[in-house]
Amino acid sequence: MCQLLGMNCNVPTDICFSFTGFQARGGLTDDHKDGWGITFFEGKGVRQFLDPSPSSHSPIADFVRTYPIKSMNVIAHIRKATQGEIKLENTHPFVREMWGLYWSFAHNGDLKNFSPELDGRYRPVGNTDSETAFCFILQEMQKKFGETKPEDSKLFELIHKLTLELAGFGIFNFLLSNGELMYAHCSTKLASIVRKAPFTVAHLKDREVTVDFSSVTTQNDRVAVIATNPLTENEQWTTHAPGTLLLFKDGEILSEKPTKAGPTPQEICPV
Amino acid sequence: MCQLLGMNCNVPTDICFSFTGFQARGGLTDDHKDGWGITFFEGKGVRQFLDPSPSSHSPIADFVRTYPIKSMNVIAHIRKATQGEIKLENTHPFVREMWGLYWSFAHNGDLKNFSPELDGRYRPVGNTDSETAFCFILQEMQKKFGETKPEDSKLFELIHKLTLELAGFGIFNFLLSNGELMYAHCSTKLASIVRKAPFTVAHLKDREVTVDFSSVTTQNDRVAVIATNPLTENEQWTTHAPGTLLLFKDGEILSEKPTKAGPTPQEICPV
Repeated sequence: MCQLLGMNCNVPTDICFSFTGFQARGGLTDDHKDGWGITFFEGKGVRQFLDPSPSSHSPIADFVRTYPIKSMNVIAHIRKATQGEIKLENTHPFVREMWGLYWSFAHNGDLKNFSPELDGRYRPVGNTDSETAFCFILQEMQKKFGETKPEDSKLFELIHKLTLELAGFGIFNFLLSNGELMYAHCSTKLASIVRKAPFTVAHLKDREVTVDFSSVTTQNDRVAVIATNPLTENEQWTTHAPGTLLLFKDGEILSEKPTKAGPTPQEICPV
Repeated sequence: MCQLLGMNCNVPTDICFSFTGFQARGGLTDDHKDGWGITFFEGKGVRQFLDPSPSSHSPIADFVRTYPIKSMNVIAHIRKATQGEIKLENTHPFVREMWGLYWSFAHNGDLKNFSPELDGRYRPVGNTDSETAFCFILQEMQKKFGETKPEDSKLFELIHKLTLELAGFGIFNFLLSNGELMYAHCSTKLASIVRKAPFTVAHLKDREVTVDFSSVTTQNDRVAVIATNPLTENEQWTTHAPGTLLLFKDGEILSEKPTKAGPTPQEICPV
């Protein structure tokens, strides 16, 4: 499968440190070699870097690691293909526009026999279960709320309902953002950390890199980092319970709700 | 206004040489300093690099200039803002999905008092006339043909009709591609060249760079390059007549049709 990395902040922040560790997992410290991608929201705009080659050997990933782009919401993904060939169009995260906002989505998992009825408004370009799931979610959001973005709590309820439905088809860890909110679903594996004052020193697991966050932040900064596996070895990450939908806003968890329907992780993926 | 650069080929080709000259026009040899962007189609996928800073000083543009990405269809744009702030969401080219394909669009010009009725299926994220025009074109394509891509000639007819309509609002040079076809409209200024065997040596206008195409091509390669102003000084570019819609496919002009409706360029922009 794949690995996810997300960031949600209350102030534009670069993701260079976290991405430095994450990049290594695409072919160096782990075997997710089937491409990688990252979406940065800046205001209402998005920048996206995609590459169907392993992140650990990708010149584009080297560029992203060393070029600080400040963003309040970032989604990154390294791929180990289950469905869909290793091609650019199957590389996560995916991006679509809805309600005059860009939405970006990345998935770690595998949905079996998932072929929902799509009315054509949001159609997959590639042939992954993940992009199909993203298009289905957007379609259902549009069906329910029409052409106007609802208030956050109503959208959270719908995304919770859709997550329950989709998780019935298999493993469905995902990150979804519209540049303001970050939805994160722990289907089988997801961890997060909220960094805020007093900031400390962190050391990556995957590379010999240390950062002193107190030297690059202000007292009011709050940065949530979400990852399939914790990225640092000397900080206290929260390992989320399988079957949890989280909503991050301004660098903290705003809502959290169990998603217990569908087979349990043990049933899908016996140890 | 802005400058456009497009490439349409019969074999995946990198755009490094042309982009080297084009990049200089964003703040070095010309004053289009309000951002730049480029879309590469690779198979059905797209890679996009966007930056609201001047291309001549953009590290991302430096990367694109030196990292060869092979593509059959490329659209690039450097911006001199007329409508919409200098922000990422207003940076061309824009990308949307339709009929399971990505479409990308960039515009050089200025549409006055253009506020079409949009039904919400394709909505601008930023606030440029250009993104609005792109959303309108896609909306009308979907209205006319529903959920199925029509044959090329029918689509060309509709895009011609829409171009006539939109050109009535002002200057509307544009490039539009779905990864296979490249539509190019010369409203006031657009040139192109088709490079094929026997290949020769070309020298950029904007930088001291020369390339011998015969050393990097095969006999069957055919590459059309489209630009607001010719990029090389020792080749024979075709300067298209104002009011011409062109369709490029596999590196050559497939269709060409006048677009004479609307005010003439002289009426819009008196010399």
